[in-house]
Amino acid sequence: MRGEFDFINYIKERHKLKAIGDDCSVIPTDGLTDQLFTVDLLIENVDFRLDWTTPSFLGHKALAVSLSDVAAMGGTPKFALLSLGLPDSLWKTSFLDEFYEGWHSLAGTYGVELAGGDISKAGELVIDSFVIGEVPRGKALLRSGAKPGDLIFVTGELGGASLGLSLLENGMRPGDELADFHRDAILRQLKPTPQVAIGKSLLENQLATSAIDLSDGISSDLFHICQASNVGAILDASNLPIAKEATLEMALNGGEDFELLFTVPPERRLNAQQLGCTEVGKIADNSDGIRVQIDSETRPLVPRGFEHFRRQQRGDRGDP
Amino acid sequence: MRGEFDFINYIKERHKLKAIGDDCSVIPTDGLTDQLFTVDLLIENVDFRLDWTTPSFLGHKALAVSLSDVAAMGGTPKFALLSLGLPDSLWKTSFLDEFYEGWHSLAGTYGVELAGGDISKAGELVIDSFVIGEVPRGKALLRSGAKPGDLIFVTGELGGASLGLSLLENGMRPGDELADFHRDAILRQLKPTPQVAIGKSLLENQLATSAIDLSDGISSDLFHICQASNVGAILDASNLPIAKEATLEMALNGGEDFELLFTVPPERRLNAQQLGCTEVGKIADNSDGIRVQIDSETRPLVPRGFEHFRRQQRGDRGDP
Repeated sequence: MRGEFDFINYIKERHKLKAIGDDCSVIPTDGLTDQLFTVDLLIENVDFRLDWTTPSFLGHKALAVSLSDVAAMGGTPKFALLSLGLPDSLWKTSFLDEFYEGWHSLAGTYGVELAGGDISKAGELVIDSFVIGEVPRGKALLRSGAKPGDLIFVTGELGGASLGLSLLENGMRPGDELADFHRDAILRQLKPTPQVAIGKSLLENQLATSAIDLSDGISSDLFHICQASNVGAILDASNLPIAKEATLEMALNGGEDFELLFTVPPERRLNAQQLGCTEVGKIADNSDGIRVQIDSETRPLVPRGFEHFRRQQRGDRGDP
Repeated sequence: MRGEFDFINYIKERHKLKAIGDDCSVIPTDGLTDQLFTVDLLIENVDFRLDWTTPSFLGHKALAVSLSDVAAMGGTPKFALLSLGLPDSLWKTSFLDEFYEGWHSLAGTYGVELAGGDISKAGELVIDSFVIGEVPRGKALLRSGAKPGDLIFVTGELGGASLGLSLLENGMRPGDELADFHRDAILRQLKPTPQVAIGKSLLENQLATSAIDLSDGISSDLFHICQASNVGAILDASNLPIAKEATLEMALNGGEDFELLFTVPPERRLNAQQLGCTEVGKIADNSDGIRVQIDSETRPLVPRGFEHFRRQQRGDRGDP
């Protein structure tokens, strides 16, 4: 059985699609600007649970995940469209008003204008978020530019969203009395912050040779970079900026941190550090494969991040 | 209880949205071109039934409904993004391949490029279709330009899609041995044709003062034109081009014909006729209200077209 990413590749080749394969598709408009298009579909009880979050957090997250895709390309988000499939029961409550308050509060921060949408009745809550951004012509950060010898950097901390998910699964809720780092982890899961400013800074300073957002988990997202760039990589587990109380497994395979991973030429190391980013490894030759060094042992890094539809299991999730 | 259209108006005012209110939102890009954005959400067992259609027809329709919105603005469709929420059971079949074949077959007709999308697992099939089109700057056909005295025209025939729906509800299927006009009606419902060429022609010839696509039903769609243009209208039922075996009720209140309704100044009547369109009424003063003449009787035309969420019922559906 093919997996989700296999199918996307198949459709791309079958129908000769050129624009697909990065966090956003890149479409030239005029001589000065390229447009970025991205879309994220969130389905109740698959991508979120209503009893774990608030309508306002959900509105925030629906937009944040798409803004994160624009950030990964170094772009400036401009417009958004929002489709909602709504169960009858929610139509009769203040859900939509609170949802839009959360959505618009984040949109206002980045000057994003709501430019349309659609509403349908549905059995389960469905949210589809389209965002249109822009970059200077030909300057979008792609997944395909990493070169052997480039250094791998990440923004922020990893594993927090995965820890937050695990706390939610264990019954903690954002409204509970919680320790600060538990609250942080839960908010990281429910109300993530897209790294738009750092993405733009990478582009403006021509710092990154490639970039991606950490939505599926670093093991999968680094795999995407290596595949697109036709390179290998070695990740240093001891350097990963792991969120407090999160595990290495969460940092490697937990998704939804919505930080950025990017590669820089070695002579630009200082510039990346000055942005507050953390060096976590190095790009290698394709023949070296993708590996992670844990303590003194080096082993293959298998992409175990989130996929909605997996191919035949290659082994249990668990150790990296 | 507010209805779907009330809520959209509320959101528009609450968040000071300017771009929303037509079939597409209109966003200026450079000095020569405006972009059109539109999105249509289709939910299993609300907007379609899998046992009534084929995966290929469904792929066709998912794109056609959005192309129809671009057509209503006189635009040229350029790019599309497609989000799919998919039950596990469908992932394991050839559903997606056939769905994309239907989608791409229609996309190819209009030179539309698939520029991205998202796939998630879902309990019921969810399709969200996003299309980007363009028009010459400032030339998009809007709902708001109708003037008292303008003539009302429609393309094609009305009520066929509603008849098709009724035949499907009564057990007929597209694969059955059917009379030609039954097959036509069912295909009108399952595989509609967007009126892109006529929309472009209206724009290029500066023929229409306003336009909309007939997605909800003419009683509702004419109501949208009158509301946006601050005018009234009188519809002549005897002139409606009703599809074979369809009823006046189907033509007035049945949705999904995806024909265009547009208004032209009286001196352009001949040009509209030369496009093969049918004159069905006249724009009146706002104070005249929206009325329909049936035989010798004139009565108010109540918008009884499709809404996913209705406000407090104003009476049963049935007679116009």
